[in-house]
Amino acid sequence: MKIALAQLNYTVGDFDGNTAKIIEAVNRAKGEAADLVVFAELSISGTPAYSLLEKVTFLEHCEEALVEIASYCDGISALVGLPIQREDGATVSAMALIQNRKVIRYVTKEFIRIGDDRPFMFGGSGVQYVKMCGKKVAIVVGEDIYKEQEYGRNADLIINTRSSQYRRGIVEKRYNDYCDMAYRYNKPIVMVNQVGAQTDVAFDGSSAVYNDRGGMVAMLNSFAEDFRVIDTEAENPVVELPAQNRTENVYKAIILGLRDYFAKNGYFKACIGMSGGIDSAVVGALAVEALGAENVHFLMMPSQFSSDESVVDAIEMAKRMGVEYNVIPINEAYKSLTDSLIPVCGGTPFGVTEENIQSRIRAIMLMAMANKFKYTILNTTNKSEFATGYGALYGDYIGDFSVLADVYKCEVYSLARYMNREREVIPVSILEKEPSAELYPGQKDLDYLPPYDVTDAILYRMIEQGQHREEIINAGFDDEVVRHIHSRLVKAAAKRHQFCPILRVSTKPLKPGVEIPLTTRYGLYY
Amino acid sequence: MKIALAQLNYTVGDFDGNTAKIIEAVNRAKGEAADLVVFAELSISGTPAYSLLEKVTFLEHCEEALVEIASYCDGISALVGLPIQREDGATVSAMALIQNRKVIRYVTKEFIRIGDDRPFMFGGSGVQYVKMCGKKVAIVVGEDIYKEQEYGRNADLIINTRSSQYRRGIVEKRYNDYCDMAYRYNKPIVMVNQVGAQTDVAFDGSSAVYNDRGGMVAMLNSFAEDFRVIDTEAENPVVELPAQNRTENVYKAIILGLRDYFAKNGYFKACIGMSGGIDSAVVGALAVEALGAENVHFLMMPSQFSSDESVVDAIEMAKRMGVEYNVIPINEAYKSLTDSLIPVCGGTPFGVTEENIQSRIRAIMLMAMANKFKYTILNTTNKSEFATGYGALYGDYIGDFSVLADVYKCEVYSLARYMNREREVIPVSILEKEPSAELYPGQKDLDYLPPYDVTDAILYRMIEQGQHREEIINAGFDDEVVRHIHSRLVKAAAKRHQFCPILRVSTKPLKPGVEIPLTTRYGLYY
Repeated sequence: MKIALAQLNYTVGDFDGNTAKIIEAVNRAKGEAADLVVFAELSISGTPAYSLLEKVTFLEHCEEALVEIASYCDGISALVGLPIQREDGATVSAMALIQNRKVIRYVTKEFIRIGDDRPFMFGGSGVQYVKMCGKKVAIVVGEDIYKEQEYGRNADLIINTRSSQYRRGIVEKRYNDYCDMAYRYNKPIVMVNQVGAQTDVAFDGSSAVYNDRGGMVAMLNSFAEDFRVIDTEAENPVVELPAQNRTENVYKAIILGLRDYFAKNGYFKACIGMSGGIDSAVVGALAVEALGAENVHFLMMPSQFSSDESVVDAIEMAKRMGVEYNVIPINEAYKSLTDSLIPVCGGTPFGVTEENIQSRIRAIMLMAMANKFKYTILNTTNKSEFATGYGALYGDYIGDFSVLADVYKCEVYSLARYMNREREVIPVSILEKEPSAELYPGQKDLDYLPPYDVTDAILYRMIEQGQHREEIINAGFDDEVVRHIHSRLVKAAAKRHQFCPILRVSTKPLKPGVEIPLTTRYGLYY
Repeated sequence: MKIALAQLNYTVGDFDGNTAKIIEAVNRAKGEAADLVVFAELSISGTPAYSLLEKVTFLEHCEEALVEIASYCDGISALVGLPIQREDGATVSAMALIQNRKVIRYVTKEFIRIGDDRPFMFGGSGVQYVKMCGKKVAIVVGEDIYKEQEYGRNADLIINTRSSQYRRGIVEKRYNDYCDMAYRYNKPIVMVNQVGAQTDVAFDGSSAVYNDRGGMVAMLNSFAEDFRVIDTEAENPVVELPAQNRTENVYKAIILGLRDYFAKNGYFKACIGMSGGIDSAVVGALAVEALGAENVHFLMMPSQFSSDESVVDAIEMAKRMGVEYNVIPINEAYKSLTDSLIPVCGGTPFGVTEENIQSRIRAIMLMAMANKFKYTILNTTNKSEFATGYGALYGDYIGDFSVLADVYKCEVYSLARYMNREREVIPVSILEKEPSAELYPGQKDLDYLPPYDVTDAILYRMIEQGQHREEIINAGFDDEVVRHIHSRLVKAAAKRHQFCPILRVSTKPLKPGVEIPLTTRYGLYY
């Protein structure tokens, strides 16, 4: 059977755009004499759609698009994904099977254990078997593939459609899982995944075909659209998984995420507050790569506490990259604000209040750029800072979109070195200086947190691995340091609640909005 | 059978505190010779616990607390709620039945259709029947009560435990539903609900007992702890549902929400930016009622665009309430900031940029109060503004906790009139003036939105009733006005994403964090 894998970049709720893409792929598959063309899970609607899944008109638009797509499917079968209503009105994730221009069957996803749509998506009836080209084909939606152990007995071929997000290490993990499943079931598996980003989520594609001995015989692009026709009867040679570099994958996911965030939302120009530190430098370099230097603006906002080198480094960055910039000192505004506050704060010593005022004046300046010139503000907070609440709410925490808040500080350095692999995009002086927020003379991040390699190792265990404090201390980390970081992690939850969307690249992103309850005694006292 | 209903105010994750309360109620029930004492769903853990439900140590603490509680249950049975792990590791909501100081059974909730814990909570096995005092008792957890139609055949008595949040009209609705179910099943129902607030959620209690003819025979307090022993064998006279005033209930929910937010999080003092408008006046009056005038501070921050009356009214409010206040003009800071921005913004006309700078300077002032003196900042945005994005992100949108963002503007006036029912707490001049943000001379809310009675009616249909634009236009509303409000509602989603927790009082709160996808073409174009 000749199966076309159509790995396309959809936009949530863009029925015209998604339908046009799908029809174009149907036609291409017909041109290449495919028997069947397979699209990803939720291809018509795009995903995640959150509460739109509860809207009848949204579901109706999906249905109308499906009817239009079906009208092009003469001489070819198609599997297209969309949300539909279960009998009781709950929404389920379905694959529609089109044959002879008619929708002849819906296969719905049974297990909804994970994923962003879970609060709005319910369980369907699971795997179905259909005859196609004389073969018995198991159609499996999403993670149901991990649940069913009986495909081996019941099918000649397994087709599995996914909307599987990129997260660090997923390409390797998915490859291992599918090789293993194809081997155990002793059946070929065709897997088609979403590609492209929707706000904070990036799908990596990496659709693939496996033979019945657990060998991968085809793999489509990662982080880009792709299309491939495979004859499952042919003796396809086994191909190796391309070498995976995790930093490179994170880099590609971020570039895709940035590009799609701007393109799909109709934004054009990014503005970044450039301190001369590593985080803003990396965000600046990523933005230039994703959007082009002509669409990026840097704003340097030195105070009396900023070092000369920071401003020099930031200007050097801008010049190397060919990015327009302005230098707007904040000294006067800082003096004016603190003077105004003398009736309430006068006579108190310089402290976190005054540090935050500097950070918040910078936020006002950046938001003025956004309001006046329609710039989209990119946040520069990294995951180590975000987790521990190191940064001012309504200050460094502002932005329309966060590029790095799911990337630990040590990984920010890896990204910088990766981007510098051919030429020095980010001045080495920025990589080598000691991290500092420069909010008072001589301030260093080390005054607040242990060295970032220790902080990150502890945070990784707490967040990604879900380890309890005691486990981490037993693994050899310093008791007091672990408790300090844990206390910061818990207390910073209220600040994380008010954060902008964060591009996700890890297995355990800290999401804005509710993650742990803000009112709780657990964590601090137990 | 003598059943004690223990309606207690728990704190999420406060195992010591919750356990102590539960044991105290066990002892009281023993003292009153009850056969069984019933606590609410998830009483040991408190709820919502969100991702804590995934933490093994959290579940272990629940189990330990249960063992301790059981040790006090000599001569009495008890039903206590806690999260436990299903065989496959997923967390379910259980009621533990304790008899003779031993946990003899867990009844788990089957249907998890709604609620904050849904992403972390999974389905259990549903209703169970136990023999107690010679009676067959159906134990039903949470909303399972709405699903099972067979209780009438199988039980002599139904016990149902809930964690049912307050929302406008719920007390009446719950009363009608339970009367109806008791009548249909022809069996008595004992319902015990949570009471108290956890950050943004308020449980109203209102636990009740119904006889087998659908009459209510006992109702516990709304919005306060309560304890009652009922003999289900006795001929209990039917009692009326106390008269329900929706504004009064919203008022009580907010007072409970504010009090518990401060008490359970260990906060003491609230600071409110007081403009002299209706929203900040109502928040100020609510805070004084909930926390006491001595724990409230008003900050007036007039600009050159503020009317004299606004400042006069704000000061009058503070004096009437006996609240400390400061007046900090923002003129100088505004001039300094706009002067600093001349290199980028110079020569452009006054507009939304300059309006927002004023609003954001006020945010800096309020946050200085928070940082310097540990004030908790109460946000004053109402639901009409929040829905339509009328307000500056990082400006009027700031705060630790939002009191009114689930209360429409028209309801804010109702709350003000309710609080003025005995004496003029809020100066009538504030109720009577035309709403204005006073960010430029002569500005009125009406320049941006239709009159609030029209705006609110349209928003209520869109949000609470989920109506499509076409339905609302067909109901007689102006086409252009409906489209304008809908467009604002959709576009404001990104601003809502970064908002603080909002005390919920409506059936459809707009929650910060993801509600609709930020990347979507649906809504704007379809």
